[in-house]
Amino acid sequence: MAPQYKLTYFNLRARGELTRFIFAAAGVQYDDNRIEFSEWPALKEKTPMGQMPLLEADGKVVCQSGAIARYMARETGLGGKSSWEEAQVDMFVCGVDDLITKLCDAHFASDEAVKEERTKALGPYVSKFLDNYEKLCGPEGHLVGTSLTYADLAFFVGMHDIWQHRADALEKYPKLAKVAETVRDNEGVAAYIAERPETNI
Amino acid sequence: MAPQYKLTYFNLRARGELTRFIFAAAGVQYDDNRIEFSEWPALKEKTPMGQMPLLEADGKVVCQSGAIARYMARETGLGGKSSWEEAQVDMFVCGVDDLITKLCDAHFASDEAVKEERTKALGPYVSKFLDNYEKLCGPEGHLVGTSLTYADLAFFVGMHDIWQHRADALEKYPKLAKVAETVRDNEGVAAYIAERPETNI
Repeated sequence: MAPQYKLTYFNLRARGELTRFIFAAAGVQYDDNRIEFSEWPALKEKTPMGQMPLLEADGKVVCQSGAIARYMARETGLGGKSSWEEAQVDMFVCGVDDLITKLCDAHFASDEAVKEERTKALGPYVSKFLDNYEKLCGPEGHLVGTSLTYADLAFFVGMHDIWQHRADALEKYPKLAKVAETVRDNEGVAAYIAERPETNI
Repeated sequence: MAPQYKLTYFNLRARGELTRFIFAAAGVQYDDNRIEFSEWPALKEKTPMGQMPLLEADGKVVCQSGAIARYMARETGLGGKSSWEEAQVDMFVCGVDDLITKLCDAHFASDEAVKEERTKALGPYVSKFLDNYEKLCGPEGHLVGTSLTYADLAFFVGMHDIWQHRADALEKYPKLAKVAETVRDNEGVAAYIAERPETNI
C-alpha cells in the first residue's frame, strides 16, 4: 500500500512549497495540512526541533524542509539518476534555498529600515543568482540531466517571488526560461498552481 | 581507480569541517585545499555560485556545503542505511547547520552591538538544541540507527564551538555524550583532529 503522507506547515509557500511541488509533479496524494499562526505555539512543543515544515509518512515524523524535500524527491524519482547528478541537483536546490532565505529575511524583518535595506539588496542578489544558474543550466529545459528533477521545481518555486516584481525576469535567460516552461507545463504542477491559495510569501 | 577529491575552502571549520570529517572517518584521501582570504576574490568569479566550499571529484565541480557533505556521505556509506534513515540523518545534519549559521552570524557580525546580541542569544539556542537532540538521539552512541553516520560527525563538529565556552556542555545529556565519544574514538577522526590547524570558527 502507498504510504500515507502529511505535510504540516503554515499557509505559506516559503519552506513548504518545494515539497508540495514534488508531490504535485509526482502525482502523489498527501494531506496538505496548512495551519494558522495561532495554532503554532501549541504544536511547536510537540515537534522534533520546534520547527515546521513537518512530514509524516505513515505516522513517522521528520522535520527540516531540506531533508523533507530530498526524501520525497528520492521516493518519487525526482532526485537525479546517479549520485553525481543527485549532488548537482542538491547544489541547485541549496542555491534556491539561499535565495528563499534572503526573501524571507526581507519579508519578515520587523524593523522597517532593515526591511528596506534587505529588500534593496535583493535586486543585485537575484541578478547574480540568475546569471549563475543560466551559466550552469542544461540546454534541454532541465537544470540537470535530461528529465525533470526537483532542482527544476525548486528553481520555479524561487522564481515566483521574483516574477511578482519583474514579470520579464527571464527574458535574457533562455535556458532558464525553458526550465520554467517545462515546470509550468507539468500537468500535476499546473493543477496544483491553479488551486493553491494565494499567499504573500 | 579511486576518484581524486579536492575540497577547497578557507582555513576555517565553519562550512567545510563536516566534509573533512566524512573524509577522515571514511579513510578517504583528498586534497584539503585551504586558501587565504586574499586568494578568494580572484577565485570567486571562477566558482559555480560565487561560494565555497567547492568539491572537485576527478575535476568535476560541485558547490554548496550541504550538497557536498551529502554527496561524500553517500559515496562513503555514511548517509544512512535506508531512504528513511537518510531522511533522519539529513534532518540532524540540517539542524547542526542551523546551529553553525547562528555561530557564524555571531562571529562574523561587523557591528559590535549586533555581535553581542547574537552571542547572547546563542546560550538559550544551544540549550534548546541539545534538549531536542538528546530527546531524538538513539541509545547506542548514534543519533540514527546502530552505526556511524555523518549525523554523528555533524553533531560533533557543531559541539566544537559549544565546548570552547562550556566544556561540560554534555554533562546532562548522556545519549549525546555517548555520540561524542563514538566520534572522538573513531580512528580516522582522531588522527585528523590531532593534525588539523586551530581556527577561530
